[in-house]
Amino acid sequence: MRARGVSVRRWLPVLDWARRYDRATLAGDLTAAVIVTVMLIPQSLAYAMLAGLPPEAGLYASIVPILLYSLFGSSRVLAVGPVAVVSLMTAASVGQVVQAGTAGYATAALTLAFLSGLVLLLMGVLRLGFIANFLSHPVIAGFISASGLLIAASQIGPMVGLKAEGQGMVAQLVFLIENIDRANGPTAVIGAASLAALVWMRRGLKPLLRRLGLGARAADLLVRAGPVGAVVLATAAVWALGLDQRGVAVTGAVPQRLPPFTLPSLDLTLIRELALPAALISLIGFVESVSVGQTLAARRRQRIDPDQELVALGAANLGAAFAGGFPVTGGFARSVVNHDAGAETPAAGAFTALGLALASLFLTPFIALLPKATLAATIVVAVLSLVDLSILKRSWAYSRADFATVAATMSVTLLVGVEAGVMAGVGLSLLLYLYRTSRPHVAEVGRVPGTEHFRNIHRFAVETDPRVLILRIDESLYFANTRYLESLILERVSGDAALRHVVLMCSAVNEIDLSALETLEELDHRLHEMGLKLHLAEVKGPVMDRLAPTDFLRQMSGQVFVSQFEAWCRLTDRGTTQDLRQHAQARVRAG
Amino acid sequence: MRARGVSVRRWLPVLDWARRYDRATLAGDLTAAVIVTVMLIPQSLAYAMLAGLPPEAGLYASIVPILLYSLFGSSRVLAVGPVAVVSLMTAASVGQVVQAGTAGYATAALTLAFLSGLVLLLMGVLRLGFIANFLSHPVIAGFISASGLLIAASQIGPMVGLKAEGQGMVAQLVFLIENIDRANGPTAVIGAASLAALVWMRRGLKPLLRRLGLGARAADLLVRAGPVGAVVLATAAVWALGLDQRGVAVTGAVPQRLPPFTLPSLDLTLIRELALPAALISLIGFVESVSVGQTLAARRRQRIDPDQELVALGAANLGAAFAGGFPVTGGFARSVVNHDAGAETPAAGAFTALGLALASLFLTPFIALLPKATLAATIVVAVLSLVDLSILKRSWAYSRADFATVAATMSVTLLVGVEAGVMAGVGLSLLLYLYRTSRPHVAEVGRVPGTEHFRNIHRFAVETDPRVLILRIDESLYFANTRYLESLILERVSGDAALRHVVLMCSAVNEIDLSALETLEELDHRLHEMGLKLHLAEVKGPVMDRLAPTDFLRQMSGQVFVSQFEAWCRLTDRGTTQDLRQHAQARVRAG
Repeated sequence: MRARGVSVRRWLPVLDWARRYDRATLAGDLTAAVIVTVMLIPQSLAYAMLAGLPPEAGLYASIVPILLYSLFGSSRVLAVGPVAVVSLMTAASVGQVVQAGTAGYATAALTLAFLSGLVLLLMGVLRLGFIANFLSHPVIAGFISASGLLIAASQIGPMVGLKAEGQGMVAQLVFLIENIDRANGPTAVIGAASLAALVWMRRGLKPLLRRLGLGARAADLLVRAGPVGAVVLATAAVWALGLDQRGVAVTGAVPQRLPPFTLPSLDLTLIRELALPAALISLIGFVESVSVGQTLAARRRQRIDPDQELVALGAANLGAAFAGGFPVTGGFARSVVNHDAGAETPAAGAFTALGLALASLFLTPFIALLPKATLAATIVVAVLSLVDLSILKRSWAYSRADFATVAATMSVTLLVGVEAGVMAGVGLSLLLYLYRTSRPHVAEVGRVPGTEHFRNIHRFAVETDPRVLILRIDESLYFANTRYLESLILERVSGDAALRHVVLMCSAVNEIDLSALETLEELDHRLHEMGLKLHLAEVKGPVMDRLAPTDFLRQMSGQVFVSQFEAWCRLTDRGTTQDLRQHAQARVRAG
Repeated sequence: MRARGVSVRRWLPVLDWARRYDRATLAGDLTAAVIVTVMLIPQSLAYAMLAGLPPEAGLYASIVPILLYSLFGSSRVLAVGPVAVVSLMTAASVGQVVQAGTAGYATAALTLAFLSGLVLLLMGVLRLGFIANFLSHPVIAGFISASGLLIAASQIGPMVGLKAEGQGMVAQLVFLIENIDRANGPTAVIGAASLAALVWMRRGLKPLLRRLGLGARAADLLVRAGPVGAVVLATAAVWALGLDQRGVAVTGAVPQRLPPFTLPSLDLTLIRELALPAALISLIGFVESVSVGQTLAARRRQRIDPDQELVALGAANLGAAFAGGFPVTGGFARSVVNHDAGAETPAAGAFTALGLALASLFLTPFIALLPKATLAATIVVAVLSLVDLSILKRSWAYSRADFATVAATMSVTLLVGVEAGVMAGVGLSLLLYLYRTSRPHVAEVGRVPGTEHFRNIHRFAVETDPRVLILRIDESLYFANTRYLESLILERVSGDAALRHVVLMCSAVNEIDLSALETLEELDHRLHEMGLKLHLAEVKGPVMDRLAPTDFLRQMSGQVFVSQFEAWCRLTDRGTTQDLRQHAQARVRAG
């Protein structure tokens, strides 16, 4: 019975924290919930617009998913819901399949959330979270920055009252510039004013509040609620000046209700078309969410369980699919605000859901006159903080391969699209890694005088012996590099008349696969024909375990030495008896 | 002027050997050419049939390509032409695009040879021969064995006078078994007799010839010419008994002429459909050819240049495309015979081409009554020697990953097809490699007493210190494993109250990429918060070069030690002053 209890708790972290819940925790959670709710209202509406959906979908996508995450999530403060990059990916993938604005579009978005939920859940149950590790930092950084630029560019149209036409960011920007004279004046004024106000709130409001005597944390939180102020002012302006009659696009009537019960489509053609986008959205969303969760957990000396996070995000996306939403994940800004506002447990998320449900019921009438240009401005301000071009400079300084990955991810994302960008980045980073391991570094080493340490003859002042060539192979021996290494070694030894022994120092050889074993047999054979003996030194335990049952070691012309120093002493006759006895003792396996 | 001469010679190895040509060389080359020609006549006809083409295409595919290879090839004895696996791949890929037996089919085969020639030439000029290294031994062995089985199974129909219907090997075998009563009796008798004769020639003829007093080499060569005997006998039987009137399929009238001048198709749809097959055929053909060439070159202490081989095979395939052939490569059997018969230079190839041209002009009338069942039998005997199932056993004994690769390559090749088989094998072997490097082995090490050598505490009797944790990371640090290693290290240190220092022994770390650098910074930060210092030891030159300009080493809580022993002495206060001075001197870079 106990084992079962543990197992249920493993899948339902809520059981852990709920029974230690008390009044102090409640106070912290409630405060955080109020602040996050205020922040989320405009954000949810804006991201729904970014995803190409009616504004209420953003509210719905925040309510049920937050509740489900609070049951299953292992992070105490992560806040899930629509986020910029995932909303952009939703728009990109659904837009390829269905015309925006149709009923099929919303259903396709639900289906995408459903598939994404299944992928995440499956990865969590099968403990496949490690797959996300194949997204390198350069790929993620390049992708997020490029997505930020894409999103910001896509919002220029709504901010000036023009609908950009054409495929791809460049074509749309060209269209906007060419047609700027057709922009709607009042819309452009509202857009510019909103943008200016929001930027000022980020930059200027906090110092002002501090000068007015507010504490740093309170000032921070008030600034976070700033967009609500902008939204209220802009809506009031539209209402007072009747701007909606003068061409300013507004969100329009929003139903006053709780999230509806919806069903994703089970159309196989649609599912096939959305499967790859769903997998990519899941991966990107998971990486974003986990990195936020880990950063915040570390601040409180807590840890999160990535596989449990997969389960929780899967549940959240399934919730979005059945409650009128679209794909969601843990968002950076909202989680930070939740954390800073004092959230102690996932109950804060449940209270936020409650707040948003109340907003859906009672605040929606006031949203009808909210200008879309203001929502676009909130998106622009939010995503520009994602753009960090310093990664280009940093990766260039560190390694060309990392730079190439960043550059490829960014340019493909910007010029072709988000899915192609992620795949190009992952593909290129893996290919570059494989390429590097296929032409490994090999160092000719000698003994650091007076020590048992062996280093590169070109970098250190070391002892060598003309009869003994010691090569340190700086890579595992596997099929992709084994022929390269064979040629390299044969080229090095040919014509060296004094040579008698070739020692491969295997301290960096973590694996010898079957292809490499066969090549080693051949190499030994060729060296033997040239009158040379092949030896191995410092072969690691796991590699030795694999070689031991084969015929290779018995047939090899030379020996296997535990340490490079032992090989040196034996082959050059320079070691003392004492040295050798000690190394021989090391062969005795412990236990 | 001299540099130019060298560069021309690099691309045209013929300039090297042609001016040292003398009478003795000529004698060797001529003998080899006669024997190879006799062997190639039935083989060329049979492989054309396997590729789904009229028999003369096999002769044509041998003539011009051999000539071109003799100009560009770097191997002295490699014989190019149609080979079993490449012919099978040709049939598989052309058959997917065009109906067999139509005029379009032959054109598609020419186009495939053309594309394959372009791919090879391009790879050669760009020195991309290393790409072939990504085909591991298990993939190649599995693919060749499975292809052999596929080909043998495909020849059962012709050997019994039935045309197998259905997609895939299993369906075709089932069809043959169900319809065996519709087989043609005389055809089956000829097929069975040819097969028996050919097998006996391989097994029984050589010992007999030896007993009759022939030398080992002469007996070998006579056995190789055996299939011609079978062909002559079978043709005579058809002629004498009028079997072609009794349902025995014969090759029929073959034009009496030299290779025609043909043009590949430039239809873009066709080119797009054949591009991937052409690339795969090029890779497989290149690997087969180079391994034959290397094996034979090694016997004579010669070397071949893989990039030059690409150029030569590219030229040979282009030749095949413009002279009525289909994709070709260096064949194992014919090259061995060429070598054993005493070929000294590629001129032997030119003479072989001459012999085959004469055969096309004067021997073709005699081929008209050659039964297809006999050709099928020669194919079966030739390909069964390719099937080597011992690779399954060997790979199983050595490593599960290699076994999985062999098994996947074989089963996908047999059940789905040749292209899918190669791709599944390459894909799986790369994924398994990446998976293994993403969860590397980490050993906790201690000092082998009395030495400066450090080994796994679970395998060796070593000294340790409760204040110092030494972890040997058995893999390069890169994006796919960096988060895994971070968790592993943090888990190991948490709760270990005595611990003060964590040393990462980097002897097996061949690279630290940008993702790993960022993770190391974070790890150092976390360890620092826990009151621990992070140190690195035995960082290799190339890795150190990259780390040195970054801020990481300056900000790191601990130090970088040249050797693990130095780290041990400093951190445990157990070293002698003498020890430390010597290690400090090692820091001085040579040169």
